[in-house]
Amino acid sequence: MNSFGRLFRVSIFGESHGRAVGIVVDGCPAGIGLEVSDFLPDLERRKPGAAGTTPRHEDDMPEIVSGVFNGKTTGAPITILFENKNVRSGDYDAIKNTPRPGHADFVLQRKFKGFNDYRGGGHSSGRLTLGIVAAGVIAKKMLAQVTVMAALIEAGGSNDIEAAIAAAVEKQDSIGGIVQCNVNGLSLGLGEPFFDSVESAISHVIFAVPAIKGIEFGSGFAATRMYGSEHNDAIVDEKGTTKTNNAGGINGGITNGNELYFRVAVKPTSSTPQMQRTWNAATRSVEDFQVKGRHDLCIALRVPVVVEAAAAIALADLSLISKAY
Amino acid sequence: MNSFGRLFRVSIFGESHGRAVGIVVDGCPAGIGLEVSDFLPDLERRKPGAAGTTPRHEDDMPEIVSGVFNGKTTGAPITILFENKNVRSGDYDAIKNTPRPGHADFVLQRKFKGFNDYRGGGHSSGRLTLGIVAAGVIAKKMLAQVTVMAALIEAGGSNDIEAAIAAAVEKQDSIGGIVQCNVNGLSLGLGEPFFDSVESAISHVIFAVPAIKGIEFGSGFAATRMYGSEHNDAIVDEKGTTKTNNAGGINGGITNGNELYFRVAVKPTSSTPQMQRTWNAATRSVEDFQVKGRHDLCIALRVPVVVEAAAAIALADLSLISKAY
Amino acid sequence: MNSFGRLFRVSIFGESHGRAVGIVVDGCPAGIGLEVSDFLPDLERRKPGAAGTTPRHEDDMPEIVSGVFNGKTTGAPITILFENKNVRSGDYDAIKNTPRPGHADFVLQRKFKGFNDYRGGGHSSGRLTLGIVAAGVIAKKMLAQVTVMAALIEAGGSNDIEAAIAAAVEKQDSIGGIVQCNVNGLSLGLGEPFFDSVESAISHVIFAVPAIKGIEFGSGFAATRMYGSEHNDAIVDEKGTTKTNNAGGINGGITNGNELYFRVAVKPTSSTPQMQRTWNAATRSVEDFQVKGRHDLCIALRVPVVVEAAAAIALADLSLISKAY
Amino acid sequence: MNSFGRLFRVSIFGESHGRAVGIVVDGCPAGIGLEVSDFLPDLERRKPGAAGTTPRHEDDMPEIVSGVFNGKTTGAPITILFENKNVRSGDYDAIKNTPRPGHADFVLQRKFKGFNDYRGGGHSSGRLTLGIVAAGVIAKKMLAQVTVMAALIEAGGSNDIEAAIAAAVEKQDSIGGIVQCNVNGLSLGLGEPFFDSVESAISHVIFAVPAIKGIEFGSGFAATRMYGSEHNDAIVDEKGTTKTNNAGGINGGITNGNELYFRVAVKPTSSTPQMQRTWNAATRSVEDFQVKGRHDLCIALRVPVVVEAAAAIALADLSLISKAY
Repeated sequence: MNSFGRLFRVSIFGESHGRAVGIVVDGCPAGIGLEVSDFLPDLERRKPGAAGTTPRHEDDMPEIVSGVFNGKTTGAPITILFENKNVRSGDYDAIKNTPRPGHADFVLQRKFKGFNDYRGGGHSSGRLTLGIVAAGVIAKKMLAQVTVMAALIEAGGSNDIEAAIAAAVEKQDSIGGIVQCNVNGLSLGLGEPFFDSVESAISHVIFAVPAIKGIEFGSGFAATRMYGSEHNDAIVDEKGTTKTNNAGGINGGITNGNELYFRVAVKPTSSTPQMQRTWNAATRSVEDFQVKGRHDLCIALRVPVVVEAAAAIALADLSLISKAY
Repeated sequence: MNSFGRLFRVSIFGESHGRAVGIVVDGCPAGIGLEVSDFLPDLERRKPGAAGTTPRHEDDMPEIVSGVFNGKTTGAPITILFENKNVRSGDYDAIKNTPRPGHADFVLQRKFKGFNDYRGGGHSSGRLTLGIVAAGVIAKKMLAQVTVMAALIEAGGSNDIEAAIAAAVEKQDSIGGIVQCNVNGLSLGLGEPFFDSVESAISHVIFAVPAIKGIEFGSGFAATRMYGSEHNDAIVDEKGTTKTNNAGGINGGITNGNELYFRVAVKPTSSTPQMQRTWNAATRSVEDFQVKGRHDLCIALRVPVVVEAAAAIALADLSLISKAY
Repeated sequence: MNSFGRLFRVSIFGESHGRAVGIVVDGCPAGIGLEVSDFLPDLERRKPGAAGTTPRHEDDMPEIVSGVFNGKTTGAPITILFENKNVRSGDYDAIKNTPRPGHADFVLQRKFKGFNDYRGGGHSSGRLTLGIVAAGVIAKKMLAQVTVMAALIEAGGSNDIEAAIAAAVEKQDSIGGIVQCNVNGLSLGLGEPFFDSVESAISHVIFAVPAIKGIEFGSGFAATRMYGSEHNDAIVDEKGTTKTNNAGGINGGITNGNELYFRVAVKPTSSTPQMQRTWNAATRSVEDFQVKGRHDLCIALRVPVVVEAAAAIALADLSLISKAY
Repeated sequence: MNSFGRLFRVSIFGESHGRAVGIVVDGCPAGIGLEVSDFLPDLERRKPGAAGTTPRHEDDMPEIVSGVFNGKTTGAPITILFENKNVRSGDYDAIKNTPRPGHADFVLQRKFKGFNDYRGGGHSSGRLTLGIVAAGVIAKKMLAQVTVMAALIEAGGSNDIEAAIAAAVEKQDSIGGIVQCNVNGLSLGLGEPFFDSVESAISHVIFAVPAIKGIEFGSGFAATRMYGSEHNDAIVDEKGTTKTNNAGGINGGITNGNELYFRVAVKPTSSTPQMQRTWNAATRSVEDFQVKGRHDLCIALRVPVVVEAAAAIALADLSLISKAY
C-alpha cells in the first residue's frame, strides 16, 4: 500500500500529471524545527539539469500544509504538497495502446482495469520521489546525531562517471549505475527480530524507489566468495568496534554501532531514445516504438538523495521503535 | 517485530534451546487440505546431514496445534510447534563474556540488556527458520497454480558446488553461496504501489532469514552495466509475454505475468572452526577465540528451502491483497 | 496514530486554524465514479447553521488533489483538501494559560510539550471531521448495495429534539444527545475473528470522533436486563433472517445479514457559554472562565453524518478484507 | 484478524475442543519477572465454579513455551499454551444442522464455508479468553505503577448480584450484567490522535471479548442528559486534577492523569437451558431447540478479569507508543 512505517509513518500520494504530488508524515515528534528552506538542498540534489538528466523543469517548491506551527513540528501529521506545473500531457496519449517496454504501463493498465492515470507514469512516476525526499529531510532531522550520505559510485559499469555519462549522451542510450549509502552515528540496537531486521526495513523502502533492482549490505554478494574467517569482523573493544566491517554495521539484523553501508543497483531508465519493439494493442502486432517526452539518460545521477531519504525513513522508524522498549 | 504480513500474517516465536520453536499463521483461507505429512518434504530439505552441515539432529516433527479440523484449514490461525529435543546448552555459556565474531551475540546482549536467551543464538538462531519453512508450506498450498523453486547456484564463489564444499571441509573454514529462486505461474498484478512493491515484500521477508546480505531481482546488479535498449524487455503479445526477462517478471513493483526470479547472497556462516579474535569482557582484552558446538560449514546448502518459503509467504500475502481489489 | 484501516486506509491531517484539513484515502478500488459534487450533500449535513450550531461559516469545498482521473477513481490514493478560510485565531490565545474545562487543551499541551497548534483545538478540532465525512462518502460508494443512515434520536435526554434545542438556547448551556445508525444491505460474514470484530472496527473509528463517550450495538445496555431466552434472536429461514434483532445484526463479531444498528452517546460540547472554573497557569490559581469564540450548543446535531462516515469507513475496510478470503 | 497492537502485539489461536488454546505476546520489554505462578490468580478468577457458572472444569495451567529465560522476559515473543483436556465433543454435533440462536454458529459456518471447527464454538469460544487473561497478566506487569480493577456491578438489571444469580438459577434462564473497570496510576498522555484514542484502543480489544455489546467511558450515556456546565470537569491544580470526573480520565482521546473508568454491557449468554426455536437445515423448518452441554447461566461473573486484561492490553500498547515520542 501507499504507506510505510509503524511509528514514523509515511503516506505518499499524487500523480505525475495530476494536480500535485505529496506526502503525509505521521509520527514525527513535536518540537523539531522545520521550514520550507530545510527541504531545498535535498530537493535541489534530486533535480534534473546535469548532462544526462531530463530537461523538464519544475519549481519543486514544497508547501507545508499541516503539522508545523511557529516553525516547529507539532506532533500532528506533516503534509507536504508539490504542485505539478510544467505538465505536457499530450506526450503520453500513445501509452494506452503501445505500452513502453520496461515501464509499468502495461501492468498498471491491467491491474487497475484501465482506470489508472497513465500520463507520465501517473502514480508510479519517478516524480513521486519528491515526497520521499521530503520525508527523508524530516527523518534526517529526527536522526539528529546521524549522517546519511549516498553517492553514485559507478555508472554504466564504470567508476569514471563523467565519462560514462558522456558516452551515453553520445550513444543516445540510457545507462544505470550503483549508488552507495553510508550511515554514521547510529546507536547500537536498531532493528527488531525477527521480521523487522535493519536490512528488511531499509530494503522495503528502497525497493519502493523506481528503477532499483538490487541491494547488498556490507560485503554483500562479495561475501559469498569469502571464507568465514575472512568475513567475520573481530570485535576489538567494549563498545563493539570491529576491526573490519564486512557486516556493514549489522549483526543478526540489528545495528552494531559501526558504520552501516549498503549499495543499490539502479537499472538503466526504460525511457531510452533508441528505437525499440513493443506490442500495439490497436493493430495487434509487435511494432517499432520510440519513447517521446523529456527523460533522463542516467536517472542514477538523481537517485542518491532518494536512497538517503529511503534509508533515513526506515531508520527513523526503527529508531522510534527502539525508544519504546 | 516478530510478525509479517497484512492479510497472510506469520508470527514467529521460540528459542534454539528453549521449550520449542514455532509459528502462527493467520489469514490462511478455510478449506485447504493440510496435514503433518505436507510439511515433511520441505522440512527434510532444511535438515542438516550433507557434508558441510551440522551433526545436530532433530526430529523436526511439526505439531499442528490449531487451525486444522478434519484435515482441512478452518480459517482460524494455524499454529505449528517444533519441540527442541537435542539440546546441549553447556556449549554456549562462554558467549556471555566472549561474543562470537560475526554473530549477533554482542548486539543482542546490549539490545536486550543481558536478558536475552543466549543459548545457541536464542531467538535469533537459524533454528527459527523451521517456522518459516512451515509457513512456506502453507503459503505454497495457497498459491496453488504457482511453483516456487530455489537452488544453490554458487558456493564459495564456484558453481561446482560439491568441489567447493569439499574444499571447505578440507580447509575447515565456512563458506557462503548464492541461491536463486524462480517463481512460475504468478498472475499479473501482484504488488501494491507505492511501498508494497513485489521486491519490497519479498526482500522484507528474505532479510529476516539469518546470513542473507544481498538480493537482486532479474538482471539485478548486472543491469547497471547494460544500456536501456538492451535491458528493456520487449512485449510480444497481448498477455504481456516479453522476449527477454531482464526485469525478472516485475515492472514498477508489480508482477507482469512472466517468470519472477531473484538471487540472494548467503554469507559464510560465522561459526567457522578457525581460530579468531574477539573482545573478552571479563579480561577486558582482545583474545583468541574458537567456536564450540555443532555447526554448518556451508549453511547455504540448507537455505534454498527457506528462501522458497520466504518468497511464498510474501507472495501469498500480496495474492490475498490483490483479491480484495 | 492518524490512520485507520488495513486495506481501506484513511489518513487524516490538518489543524483547525492551519492552512487546510484533509484526508488521504488509500485502497479505494479503481473505476468508481467520483467528483466534487458527490461530497456536497454529506458535507452540507455536517455544516453549522441550524439553531444550536456555530455561526462560523466555511465553504467546506473539497479539492480532489489525487487519485481521480476522468471522473473515476484510479486505484491510487485519493487526497481531499479543505482549505481553512474563515479563521479568527485571536480568540484562542488565552488557551495557553487557561485550559478550557472538558477540552483536550491541557492534555495536548503536556503531551506535545507545548508545541501543539492550540488554535481552535488544532489537530483535535471537530473541523477534522470534514475529512472523515469525505472518506465516508468514498466508503459509501464502495459499499454500493448498502445504506448507512444515522439520525439524532435524543437530545438533552429528550426525544423531542427541537424542544431540547430551544431549551438549551434559552438556558445558554450546551447539551448532548444520542445518535442511532442503521445499516442495511450488508452481506453476511463481515468482521474477522478474534480482534477485528465488526464492533471492534466500528467502535475504533467511532471513538476517534470528538465528543463520543459510549456505543452500544443492538440491545446494548438494555440486553443486560434481559433473559437469554428473550434476547436470543430465533433464526427463521435458510438465509439466517432472525425474528427479533437484539444482536443488532452481529453474532460473534460477524455480520449475520440482518440490519446492523448501534447507538452512540454524544456528550454536551465542552464549549458552553456558561461561566466555569479552571486552573490558570499564569496566576497559579483556580479562576472563573468563560469560553470565547463561535461554538455549537448542540454538536450532536452535526454528528449523524460523521457517525455514518465512521461506520462506512470501518465496514468498507472489513468488506475488502472479506473479499480476500 | 487474530492479532492486536502496534508495539505490544497479542496474537491469539486455538479452538475450544482442539489441541490447545493460547497466545503469543510480542513486544514485551526484556527483564520483567514472569513465571507460571504469576498467571494463576487471574486465571482462577476466570474459572467457573460459582453458582451460575459452567460445571466444565479445566486445569487451565499455562505452559510458557517461549520468551522467558531464568524467570525473566527476554524481549522475544512470549508464547503461552493451555491444553484442552476436559473435552466432550459429542455434545456439539447437532450444531451443523441446527445453529444455536444467538450464537455465531450460523455465521461461522457460512463465512468459513463449513470448514470451521464448530465444536464448542471452536475458535470463537469463550475459552479463547484464557489467552486474553494471560496476555493481560503480562500487560499489567508492564504497567507497573498502574492498577486495573474490574468488577460486576449489576446482574440481570439488579445491583444485588447474588439475588440476581439465585433468580436465574431458579428460573433456569441466562442473565447478563454490567462490568465496571477502574484504572488508576496512568500517566497523562496515553492515546494517539486521531484514530488511536484511548477509547478506540480499549473498545477495540473489549469488543473482541465474546458477549460484550456496549461500552461507555466516564459518564457515558448519562452524559447525553447533562448540560455542558455540569459535565465539564474543572481543572483544579497544575497536575490537571479535576474536581469531578465525568470524562472518565480522558480528554480528546488522551488520558488526563485522573482515574480512567468505563463500563461494559455483557449480554445474557446465548446458551440458556430454556426451550428456543431455530432453523433446522436438514428438515428445512423452524423447530424447537434446546442447548446441550455445560454452560454458564451468568457469564458476566467470569468477565471482569477478561475486561481488566483487555484494558491492560490496550493500555500497554499505548504506553509503549507514548515512550517512543
